[in-house]
Amino acid sequence: MRGLPRVVIIGGGFGGLWAARALRDVPARVTVIDRTNHHLFQPLLYQVALAGLAPSDITIPIRWALRRDPHVEVVLGEVTRIDAVAKSVEVDGPLRIPYDYLIVAAGARHAYFGRDEWERYAPGLKSIDDALEIRRRFLLAFERAERADDPAERDALSTVVIVGGGPTGVELAGLASEIARKALPRDFRRVDTRRSRILLVEAGPRLLPTFPERLGERARRDLADMGVEVRTGAPVTGVDDTGATVGGEFIRSRTVFWAAGNAASPLGRDLGAPLDRAGRVIVNPDLSVPGHLEVFVVGDAALMTGPDGAPLPGVAQVAMQGGTHAAHNIGRLIRFGPTLPFRYHNLGDMATIGRNRAVANLPVGTFTGWIAWMMWLGIHLVKLIGFRNRATVLIQWAYAYVTFQRGVRLITAHDRSEARVAPRAAG
Amino acid sequence: MRGLPRVVIIGGGFGGLWAARALRDVPARVTVIDRTNHHLFQPLLYQVALAGLAPSDITIPIRWALRRDPHVEVVLGEVTRIDAVAKSVEVDGPLRIPYDYLIVAAGARHAYFGRDEWERYAPGLKSIDDALEIRRRFLLAFERAERADDPAERDALSTVVIVGGGPTGVELAGLASEIARKALPRDFRRVDTRRSRILLVEAGPRLLPTFPERLGERARRDLADMGVEVRTGAPVTGVDDTGATVGGEFIRSRTVFWAAGNAASPLGRDLGAPLDRAGRVIVNPDLSVPGHLEVFVVGDAALMTGPDGAPLPGVAQVAMQGGTHAAHNIGRLIRFGPTLPFRYHNLGDMATIGRNRAVANLPVGTFTGWIAWMMWLGIHLVKLIGFRNRATVLIQWAYAYVTFQRGVRLITAHDRSEARVAPRAAG
Repeated sequence: MRGLPRVVIIGGGFGGLWAARALRDVPARVTVIDRTNHHLFQPLLYQVALAGLAPSDITIPIRWALRRDPHVEVVLGEVTRIDAVAKSVEVDGPLRIPYDYLIVAAGARHAYFGRDEWERYAPGLKSIDDALEIRRRFLLAFERAERADDPAERDALSTVVIVGGGPTGVELAGLASEIARKALPRDFRRVDTRRSRILLVEAGPRLLPTFPERLGERARRDLADMGVEVRTGAPVTGVDDTGATVGGEFIRSRTVFWAAGNAASPLGRDLGAPLDRAGRVIVNPDLSVPGHLEVFVVGDAALMTGPDGAPLPGVAQVAMQGGTHAAHNIGRLIRFGPTLPFRYHNLGDMATIGRNRAVANLPVGTFTGWIAWMMWLGIHLVKLIGFRNRATVLIQWAYAYVTFQRGVRLITAHDRSEARVAPRAAG
Repeated sequence: MRGLPRVVIIGGGFGGLWAARALRDVPARVTVIDRTNHHLFQPLLYQVALAGLAPSDITIPIRWALRRDPHVEVVLGEVTRIDAVAKSVEVDGPLRIPYDYLIVAAGARHAYFGRDEWERYAPGLKSIDDALEIRRRFLLAFERAERADDPAERDALSTVVIVGGGPTGVELAGLASEIARKALPRDFRRVDTRRSRILLVEAGPRLLPTFPERLGERARRDLADMGVEVRTGAPVTGVDDTGATVGGEFIRSRTVFWAAGNAASPLGRDLGAPLDRAGRVIVNPDLSVPGHLEVFVVGDAALMTGPDGAPLPGVAQVAMQGGTHAAHNIGRLIRFGPTLPFRYHNLGDMATIGRNRAVANLPVGTFTGWIAWMMWLGIHLVKLIGFRNRATVLIQWAYAYVTFQRGVRLITAHDRSEARVAPRAAG
């Protein structure tokens, strides 16, 4: 193995994991570095956030996913810097890992348009820890409302504001409404959770801007049917611990979630390549970096463009295809062949809204309602990697569908300082 | 409802939840107060700690468990004081809840024999958060060993010391050994997890002191077969971040877990009643408190005695039967009848050691090996409350049994300050 070229992959998400697997047939030593020990099935993360699934239902250990790839080594750690001149990455500071080829699949975080102080009050949804924090706030608000004597305070605790009308915002709003209206009412004695206000606010003119207009309109109608107040053309101009200012109106709320806007991983800056406004590296057509043809950037960290020159959306498919393509191009370089430009095969986009409600924009046409929801369900079940996940997730969903109950209403105490919910069981 | 007597139950564990349910036929308003929002199936907590089960597999929301009991109200909060003279409890400081009858089922925490500073280095196992902390340390140690260049450091990272030879210690040691030897080896490239040292240390002369001697001896033999080093008569005299001193010998280890000794909830002190050395309230034969016949203490917070006058062990059965009995006695008081003394019906004790290995001490006899393990499995599956838990747990176990793989190897970042594993996904 000594003489083989060394490929380092930053990130064990869709881009990184698919790249590692695609390097199976390439004579190389591969190292995958991630800050967490797990690969996350991000399309279902909103279900963990709103207590529909357990974290372990949508995660697999990265080591386990790559256990049949002896050419791959996994390192748990945070890449703090890329030295593109010396061709090495720094992990947690002291550890330096040299590379011959590098794939940056480091993803993105939420962006607050320069108002980073809003993050405290309006957490976003990218990781399992984010999801558990959102779950904690969502469930605790009802607990506090149950104990509140002041009606105004009780209303603020029963109002959820979700910022951002893309797929994540739509999915969060739909599920939040279902849980408040169907799953929780019997649990509480004083608060009527069916009367909760769930607001979905979007600065742009319509929901699901990356979907055809008809589907955005349908999502709005479906959400309204489910009791969600949808406000478009309503930019957020303020967020604090008492509520959010939306389209000029202040809405009292103790529960604000952020699903509006991304900033690419800051590692892209170390490459000396041009970036777009969201910090994404503007890659060459073969996904390599201008000036560093041995470095590739894929997924949310990259600005990848489609056949029409338009930027590709930050979805799992784009990251998976990009990761695979970058790996194949590295294989070509190792064999002294020319690299090929990336071509995205659009398999379609979907967003789920609620029970029996979804929208799907596929190459063969657009679908809504029950049929789109069944397609969404089938595809996501098939895509979840590994037998264990699939079987338990299927049971949870079947159970939730029949009973309207959500099983996983577990609050764990992440923020110990604030915790009303102390980390130690009383009973 | 106004005129009905008010019963307050502190704790939603086995004692509190069973008491609340037994009050179904009693004309009373009932309030259950717990620090967490969930009831925990504590006998399987060690499986969460060692990545065999997900937290939501062994928890149910207390509200959900009591959703069919409209006479019961649930309050999420921490009882900070009992005022037995004014007959009220303080929740999170300001909130005061008055009672006519009180059931204290507040459980216990681990005790470090006056060396509370050891807790940092040797966490115990009582709550879901405890279990996630133990899991994090257990899995991270192997991750760090994989990265360590110094062989001595790698050995310290591959050595697990479990303090306490009761059922929890035995179960943790057995499962830790199985995971290191069967589930993890293929995940790692440099570290051979099969060569991990797992030590189970006990100050007393034998394992499982509450079981017949023959079963303790069998547990020792089974554990030895599984590669666990068992040391009895080996008190721990020091613990720090480099290891533990056991029976005079210093053992380098980065992973020490505590399963030795309990201290009852400090709330017992507010009752002005006699306490035993572990802080348990020495209750009257009817489980009421000397001097406060309207207050009952059950489960790990109480010193309850069996027919032979010996203290009853801190197991689920004792808490459940005690909670039910206290509720029935309150029913008798409300109907102006006399209370009855508590009689424990011992259904037996079990401890699991590993795949196909357990010990059971039942009224009909003692059992070991495969037959005891099947009994343990069957009873615990039946006892898990609620369909959802049962079905998913069964799948996880069947999967683990067939493949030797443990599914839930998810590290979540509780201690953000220390976290190598940052809370935000890189990919």
